[in-house]
Amino acid sequence: MGITVRRPGDDEPGVEMSESAATKPLLTEIDHVAIAVPDLGAAIDYYRETFGAVVDHREVVESDGVEEALLKVAESYVQLLTPTRPDSTVAKWLDKKGGPGIHHVGYRVADCAEALESVKRQGFRVLDDQPRPGSRGTTVAFIHPKDALGTLIELVQE
Amino acid sequence: MGITVRRPGDDEPGVEMSESAATKPLLTEIDHVAIAVPDLGAAIDYYRETFGAVVDHREVVESDGVEEALLKVAESYVQLLTPTRPDSTVAKWLDKKGGPGIHHVGYRVADCAEALESVKRQGFRVLDDQPRPGSRGTTVAFIHPKDALGTLIELVQE
Repeated sequence: MGITVRRPGDDEPGVEMSESAATKPLLTEIDHVAIAVPDLGAAIDYYRETFGAVVDHREVVESDGVEEALLKVAESYVQLLTPTRPDSTVAKWLDKKGGPGIHHVGYRVADCAEALESVKRQGFRVLDDQPRPGSRGTTVAFIHPKDALGTLIELVQE
Repeated sequence: MGITVRRPGDDEPGVEMSESAATKPLLTEIDHVAIAVPDLGAAIDYYRETFGAVVDHREVVESDGVEEALLKVAESYVQLLTPTRPDSTVAKWLDKKGGPGIHHVGYRVADCAEALESVKRQGFRVLDDQPRPGSRGTTVAFIHPKDALGTLIELVQE
């Protein structure tokens, strides 16, 4: 972890800067916090009744075997996520954990392909080798949690 | 979960609205996503080198037995969190999990005491019965994850 791509002794700072993500902030927003739940209706009720947060967007993503409800909070979302079939990775995650919980975090980026390349260039594993369609018309890619502080990270381009 | 405080048959909508959080959005921002890590320096390096995210604020919170580094992303933070002593709840969490991961989510609210009362009024358990000082001069309170979709939630008033 923490592969250093900056070379302190490098006498070509321009070249060094163009190679390192360290010189350019890639994250523009916490796009969402995703909470996996067994019962989407009850989870929506909880957020509405406790915090007055209401559903802004709801979508079934067949390719991932999930249904999600997005509750808008400023420019970010709380994403409530439930499996639509038993072989969904979210179904397996819920089974393993034994209940609901924080599943992943989505970071918004201007360019998903560029951010994904930055991750791959540093030798970190990814779950999506190329960006792919996400919900609400976004372009997304997941990074492997083992190389990302145990955090399943989704890069989200609007 | 999902105690209904709205009464559809109620003929006093004004009173109903004043009693129910459902009528008033309490969350104004995803304040932070907290990632617990065993090595704060390595975690800071990872975020800087991979995403160009840099430390905006760093603080030891003695009462919680943690040191945190806040990386600003728009109006939110990625909070990297490490224990400062073995009896810290974060130390125990890392031991149990066997490595780093998403520890909790912080939701920003205008009034921590009011938001905490809304949670308690609905019968949900809290970890802090009263708001208390958090890092960077905030006022905070934690909600019990068992009553909050398995999610450790921190209410944060700036």
